[in-house]
Amino acid sequence: MYKNFKSVEKCVFGKGSFSQLRDIMDARKKQTDDYFVFLVDDVFQDSPFAQQIPIHEDHDKLIWVNVDKEPSTWQVDELTQQIHSYGKLPAGLVGIGGGSVMDIAKAISMLVTNPGPASQYQGLNLIKNPGIYKIGVPTLAGTGAEVSMTAVLTGPTKKLGIKCDYTIFDQIILDPEIVADAPTDQRFYTGMDSYIHCVESLTGTKNNAFSMAFGEKALELCQDVFLSETISRTEADEKLMISSYMGGLSLTYSEVGVCHALSYGLSFVFGYRHGIANCIAFDVLDEVYGHYVNEYRQMLQLHKVHLPKNLASTWTEDEISRMTDVAYALEHMWNHAYGPDWRTQLTREKIIGWYKMM
Amino acid sequence: MYKNFKSVEKCVFGKGSFSQLRDIMDARKKQTDDYFVFLVDDVFQDSPFAQQIPIHEDHDKLIWVNVDKEPSTWQVDELTQQIHSYGKLPAGLVGIGGGSVMDIAKAISMLVTNPGPASQYQGLNLIKNPGIYKIGVPTLAGTGAEVSMTAVLTGPTKKLGIKCDYTIFDQIILDPEIVADAPTDQRFYTGMDSYIHCVESLTGTKNNAFSMAFGEKALELCQDVFLSETISRTEADEKLMISSYMGGLSLTYSEVGVCHALSYGLSFVFGYRHGIANCIAFDVLDEVYGHYVNEYRQMLQLHKVHLPKNLASTWTEDEISRMTDVAYALEHMWNHAYGPDWRTQLTREKIIGWYKMM
Repeated sequence: MYKNFKSVEKCVFGKGSFSQLRDIMDARKKQTDDYFVFLVDDVFQDSPFAQQIPIHEDHDKLIWVNVDKEPSTWQVDELTQQIHSYGKLPAGLVGIGGGSVMDIAKAISMLVTNPGPASQYQGLNLIKNPGIYKIGVPTLAGTGAEVSMTAVLTGPTKKLGIKCDYTIFDQIILDPEIVADAPTDQRFYTGMDSYIHCVESLTGTKNNAFSMAFGEKALELCQDVFLSETISRTEADEKLMISSYMGGLSLTYSEVGVCHALSYGLSFVFGYRHGIANCIAFDVLDEVYGHYVNEYRQMLQLHKVHLPKNLASTWTEDEISRMTDVAYALEHMWNHAYGPDWRTQLTREKIIGWYKMM
Repeated sequence: MYKNFKSVEKCVFGKGSFSQLRDIMDARKKQTDDYFVFLVDDVFQDSPFAQQIPIHEDHDKLIWVNVDKEPSTWQVDELTQQIHSYGKLPAGLVGIGGGSVMDIAKAISMLVTNPGPASQYQGLNLIKNPGIYKIGVPTLAGTGAEVSMTAVLTGPTKKLGIKCDYTIFDQIILDPEIVADAPTDQRFYTGMDSYIHCVESLTGTKNNAFSMAFGEKALELCQDVFLSETISRTEADEKLMISSYMGGLSLTYSEVGVCHALSYGLSFVFGYRHGIANCIAFDVLDEVYGHYVNEYRQMLQLHKVHLPKNLASTWTEDEISRMTDVAYALEHMWNHAYGPDWRTQLTREKIIGWYKMM
């Protein structure tokens, strides 16, 4: 049985395409009291970009979402409750932000029509009812969250995605102008999410011609963006958005691997944001990802990004053990990386060893 | 304003995935008298493959579709009438065949819910009502018809697509095993459709980072398939299916160009099938597509395909003039190839000159 992969239904791509958002929303309105909820990363709260958000203040709602921490099931539960307090369900959600806001918007669109808490839906195909209409507008490029069928959340016992067909956005708007203002380090860490997606997708056991084609092209785009000293920022932003999109699609038909498993442990125990957690983990995985890790280090150097080092020296054995529990439990990632007999090749000790190298 | 590109909603890819067709159909059934119509290329009528088509003979209908000629608006009108004669509309259509059957299935899905004739809908966004559910199963790789928003038909006055969001398949099944039995020449001509799509998409004025990424990868896959002397047929079939898919998506965000315009003329006047018509036209376009034409000739040679030559010697001036009319009228293709001032660069005489070189 092959996966029956569901796509984002509609996609606009292009510089300035954010200006088409209101028309797209209005085309969805059926009744006069239909309204939309905007979920927007609160870093934009006092920015000029906030003025461009096409809210109808008399009936739409805008919620500033704080994503200083990784998105959690509690945060999703709270926001879902807030939306229920408005009375009638919104005609749609618009998520504007990085991968965290994308994932929060995706989760809430389902939680408003499925009784909570969100934590009970962490896993594959656990959502019963279709969610409400949702639009994703990424403000960072690289996560693939704009096309993926996963809303990754940290819950009481694990970091794991809510994954099903209903998770997928109905509409995305990919406007390279919006990602242009991302701070250098954040842009790099998020971009590396796409690079690592591709490496993990391409090198695992579940890949196929489909995931290979998307992964290879997305990887090449990342290389264009992060290894060229002459590429213009405009061209780089466009390419990085497409890399994120294609890398996300590559994963849908394949799977993430060792780096993401370790990264989830780091985020769960220490709250590291996903992009930087990936980068910290990838840096110790020469044994698994070989020349890709060297290439990644070239990118780090070229972009003068100073990765946190010697973290493990401050970690307790208990913290390392908890990270290892979280990582080891992500069977689908190990299965992809090593094949169905992954337990013969991957021990808790090996995972602990990697954490101690960070 | 950027295009708001609609995707095929669901896609299964993999060797043997055709066996999942019935489950996918059954999941759509809501009432006990729901039935499906299979539209199948009649070359399969006495083939072993026909036995694998999962028809429920007591209520589904199977229509063998003859595509010896290019699909026409008349053929679509006739088939639509036949389906109306069944009484209740089917729960869905399943198109199984090459690009012609794909386009016929796409057109009929809309014509059963929009009053005919089909010819009045040739153009952009002329269809008023959504069509019925439709599944595409390509048996040839290269046309991109499985993902495109166009159902190309020859009508009373022109060859032109019915193009709108409703044209897009709801589901496609990409099974490389099915394309494995295609005859060598047909496989080559159809594969070249993808190659030419990429060249036209990449070299025109409407391309962008999205169409470039898809077009470049699809082109590379074609090169892998048709320039390698060592690639296995299995790997080649998989890659060609993905090339077709990505090439089709590249076009959606860009446009076809000079070769397709000339090719439409050839098909309209002489009934040449689309794949071979493209190949005949591409072979005289050194001036426009330069090194790509040389590369294409290498592919021809490597695959020992003997392209028809010296055709123009048997054509009358009137026939050439009619082909030129058809080609010249395809403004969107010329606009893409040369830009909005294409009329200053492209004359009827130039088109006539190309036809005379064939």
